[in-house]
Order: sequence, then structure tokens, then C-alpha cells
Amino acid sequence: MSILRQDPTTKDWVIIATDRGKRPDDYQKPIAESALPTPDSTCPFCPGLENLTPPDILRYPQDSSLDWRVRVVPNKCAAVGLNVEPYRKEDGPLFREMGGVGHHEVIIETPQHDQSLSCMPTNDIELVLQACHARYCALKQDPQVKSIVLFKNHGERAETSLIHPHSQIVGTPGAPLLVRKKYEVAISHFDDTGRCLYRDLVDEERSAKVRVLFESTRFVVFHPFASRVPFETWIVPKHEEPAFGHVEPSHLAELADVLRRTLKTLDDALGNPDFNYILHSAPPEDDTKHYFLWHIQIMPRVSTIAGFELGTGIFINTILPEDAASHLKKYLQ
Amino acid sequence: MSILRQDPTTKDWVIIATDRGKRPDDYQKPIAESALPTPDSTCPFCPGLENLTPPDILRYPQDSSLDWRVRVVPNKCAAVGLNVEPYRKEDGPLFREMGGVGHHEVIIETPQHDQSLSCMPTNDIELVLQACHARYCALKQDPQVKSIVLFKNHGERAETSLIHPHSQIVGTPGAPLLVRKKYEVAISHFDDTGRCLYRDLVDEERSAKVRVLFESTRFVVFHPFASRVPFETWIVPKHEEPAFGHVEPSHLAELADVLRRTLKTLDDALGNPDFNYILHSAPPEDDTKHYFLWHIQIMPRVSTIAGFELGTGIFINTILPEDAASHLKKYLQ
Repeated sequence: MSILRQDPTTKDWVIIATDRGKRPDDYQKPIAESALPTPDSTCPFCPGLENLTPPDILRYPQDSSLDWRVRVVPNKCAAVGLNVEPYRKEDGPLFREMGGVGHHEVIIETPQHDQSLSCMPTNDIELVLQACHARYCALKQDPQVKSIVLFKNHGERAETSLIHPHSQIVGTPGAPLLVRKKYEVAISHFDDTGRCLYRDLVDEERSAKVRVLFESTRFVVFHPFASRVPFETWIVPKHEEPAFGHVEPSHLAELADVLRRTLKTLDDALGNPDFNYILHSAPPEDDTKHYFLWHIQIMPRVSTIAGFELGTGIFINTILPEDAASHLKKYLQ
Repeated sequence: MSILRQDPTTKDWVIIATDRGKRPDDYQKPIAESALPTPDSTCPFCPGLENLTPPDILRYPQDSSLDWRVRVVPNKCAAVGLNVEPYRKEDGPLFREMGGVGHHEVIIETPQHDQSLSCMPTNDIELVLQACHARYCALKQDPQVKSIVLFKNHGERAETSLIHPHSQIVGTPGAPLLVRKKYEVAISHFDDTGRCLYRDLVDEERSAKVRVLFESTRFVVFHPFASRVPFETWIVPKHEEPAFGHVEPSHLAELADVLRRTLKTLDDALGNPDFNYILHSAPPEDDTKHYFLWHIQIMPRVSTIAGFELGTGIFINTILPEDAASHLKKYLQ
């Protein structure tokens, strides 16, 4: 027996087919597969091998006589870059092309190769978020940037290329349709109701309670109604912040604690699952308008993205988010 | 250096970042990984274990005194099903749900466990396509079905659950947004030009030549201008057929040969890559209108679907489709 649920932020439907047989416990990885990575003397993100990456864009602490704790460097295999001539080309009526102008940076989250965000002290995670925040604000200054996406690929199933803890920030010259779509759905909700969709969503989830994992003063962590994958988890601010650049730097410590607690709960419940997370913000050009709230979507990679998902955009999830919440709550510290 | 290209059938952009370093040759899988699967005495798709699947919906040859060559059975882990009460429910203004009504069937393509579509005789592939065609036409009769998607997950990286050669057909109660979107883009092209987008696309690709792998009398095989993954390959009919149900049964032999030749070329060039393919058709309700051509999209799983792709819908491809075409042509038989 399966149900279809609509994601109110994209209008996409997901299929939740719970009788595919797995209980929440079955998603726990075997211990052998869930160990932390072992040190690697050739890792370009490890201290001593800084010459293997392009020069720092930012480092903390800024005083270069001290050992670094967080570094931001240009991505050596950049998807978009700064040394590209901006152009637009049309080859006949159907084939449109443009230069891959933009920013693609790597945030090296710790000097320690065999570390994990979920196990780092909150102070260190705060420093990572400070670096992400500073780079978000810097990329926003570039008028060519139409969209800024911050993301993390953790583990082999999440298709990371290097296991040393890092995340990435990309500023693209066009708004991706999925990003545009999310924003249009939010505008349309505002047109209909005069309210911010994400504030309404936070209110609805808090009053429904059954999908909320926990709350802090400024943030709520929940498993969305139309979760695309088992244990999908969102972190959303409770107050008006359309873009990540709007977060008060003094609130990053609280966000760091919320992020650490969320990832630690997933780790404990699922045996250090591989995951992707994505931080969505309102488009830089529109980020003073109150249609949107930035948010983090954590997608554990415990299930498949195969032909059906690629062909339809519809994900098949095997766990109800309500069941994910009650299972994860047992592991919440 | 990277470029962005727009897929004219979805309006989505892809990033083609060729300086990520790989040449076409580098995508070839090591021989150890590219062997065919070994027989498995517990496989529910193998002859003798038919009792492990629900009863046949269709089998070829139809004479049950003969050994079967192709079987179609309900998917035991169905994403949508027939024994579901259709309902729509709204829980507050944001949370919409409906029953997972629909069809989810498995086409077991051969009795031989260690077989591959690319190595099967054309006659046998024709039989598989006949079964797909018959089930497409049957699902279309159900007025609850708003979309029919046929797909195949081949190999571990393509997230197959069973290695015995099979494909799947799903009829869903709502049109997936991605499917709806493709159709809307096609309608909009017709509104603008009075022509079918896919016919124009076939004409443009045939006249550009550089991305065409080969043609037969009725089909053209090419690597699309905005390929999302390295070696993405489309098979498109040259004549007016909005939906797969419109293919003349007598043309399936030619399609079988085209499909076999395409998959064999990918196998030889890339060392039996894992792949997903998806067969798109016009929505059943609109499939007599000439806005659309059914087509097959083959996506070799030689690259990653990670946080950036999940967060933006933008794929990062590392090979120009023109380079994919000239590399694959060397292996074309």
C-alpha cells in the first residue's frame, strides 16, 4: 500500500511505499562500513599539503602565523569559474549556450582528515558556518551571480570525491530551474495568502508535532511531510531570513549546535550514513523580499536514485516521515 | 573552462566542465568490474522459481506448454498498486495526500540470469519490446493513469535491485511535474512555431551531424546538445509518434536492432557500463496530439548525482556530447 504526498514548496509529489518492507532499524549501516576515514598522506586538504590546492580565499584564524582551522579555496575541478569570458550563443533556434562564469569554492571544514561534522566541537562547526556565511555574502556582491547554493557530499554513496570533511559553495550565472521553481511557489503562496510559505510550513509542522525532531530558540528541525528519501531532515529558521546572508553572525553558534545535534542523531540512529545536504536561499536579487526562508535539506543516501526518479522527478520513499521522527527521537541527545 | 547549455526539451541548463580532466577513454570500466552477473539459484526471475513472483500478467510465447522467453509480472515491491482505495486528502492548507493507485509491473526480459540486453539476439529484444508495447497499451486503457513511464535500471550504480535482466513500467495517478514540464515545453514550441519540438530537434541534430551516433530508416540515435551525463544517448523516431503505443508492431524489430546496437556500442566503448534508460511518451490523455515524440533516454551511470544536482537540478557533465559521439563511433558495428 502506498500514498502520494505533495511537497508544498515545489508542488512535486513523492511516493511513500512503506510496504516495501523495511523498518526504521533496517537502515542502520553495519559497523564495518560506518567507521571514520583513515588518514591519507596524499590528501590535498590535509595540513602540510596546502600547495596542492589553489591559494586560500579565506582562512580562520586569519593570523597566518597560527595553524588554520578552516580554509576556503577555489575548487580545482570547478563547475563554473572566474576566468571565463561571459558570452551567450544561439546555434539555430534550439541550441543555447553560455560561458560557465561563476564561483565554485571548497570549504575545508577541519585540518583533521578523519573527522566528521557531527563529532566536531560546536565552536569548530561555528567557525565553518562563519566561513560559509562570509563567502555567501562575498558571492552575493558579484552581479553576475543569480543563485548561490551551499552543499555537502558526505561519504561514498553521497558521491564525495575527497573524504576529508569539506563542503562547497557555487554561485551560478543563471538561476537553476529548481531554485527558480521553489521561489515561484513561495511567491504564489504569498500572492494567495499574504504570508510566507516557509513560515506557514514551520507553523504547520510545529502544530502537527509528529514530524518535528527538536527545536531550539531560533530553529526547528523536522522531517518534511513529503520526504523524498528515508530520514530526510530540514533545518529552518523560525524568524524572517530569506537568505543565509541575513543570519546574524551571533546566531551562528546556535545553528552550529543545531546542525551538530541533527547530524549526530542521524549518525547514531543510522550508523554514520552517507548524506548530502543543501542550503537553499532566496535568489540574491530578491533576498530582501519576505517570500522565502533559507533552509538546510539533509538527504541521507540510504536509498536509490534510479530510472524512475531520473525520468519522472518523483522519488520513492520507503519510510513515513512520522515514523522517521519517532525513530530518530530515541537517539536524540 | 566550462560552458552551460540549455536542454531545449526541458529548458533546464547543464554545466559541461570538460577540464575536470577525463578523456573519453578514461570512462572505460576495468574488465574485472565489467563481467556479466553469475547465475544465482535464488533469483525470483529465473525459470523454475516462478512461484516467487505474483502470477504472470503476460508471457511470451503465450502457449504455456512452451518455456517462456519474456514474462511480465506485478512488481512485488510496487510503488503504486491496484488494491488501493483512490482518495484525496488535505490536512490543513499545505499537506496534500492521495492514494497510491496505479500499475507497477516488471518485464523479465529473458529466462537467462547472466544475460544482457546488448548481447541478446535482435529477435529476443523485439519480444521484450512487444511485451512493453502491449503493457503500455493496456495501462493506457485505465482512466486513472495520467502518465506511463517505462524504465530500466542496469547494474549496481544504476541502483538495480535484482541483476537478472528486467525493466519496469509504471502508470501513475498524477502526471509527474517533470513529465508535465516536458510536455508543456513541447506545447509552447508548437504555439510559437506550429511545429513539433522533437521533429525540429531531430532535424537540427541530423543537420548538425556532430552528435549523431547513427540512424536507421525510422530512428535516429544521438547524444543530446545538453547531455546531463557523459555519453547520454537518445533514441528518437523520425516520424510522428507522440506515444510509445503508436509504434507499429511491425516496426519493433527495427527498434530492437537500434536499441541493441546502441547498447552494444556503449558496452564496447565503456566496458559494460551501468545505465538507466527511460522511455518518455506524451501523457495518455493527450497522445493523439502531435506536439510530442516518444523517445528513449539512456543515461550511463559513470558520474555522480550529488548535492549540487539534488539541490539545483543542474547536472555537471564532464564530456562534450560531440566528443562522446566521435569516441563512440569508433566502436560502432
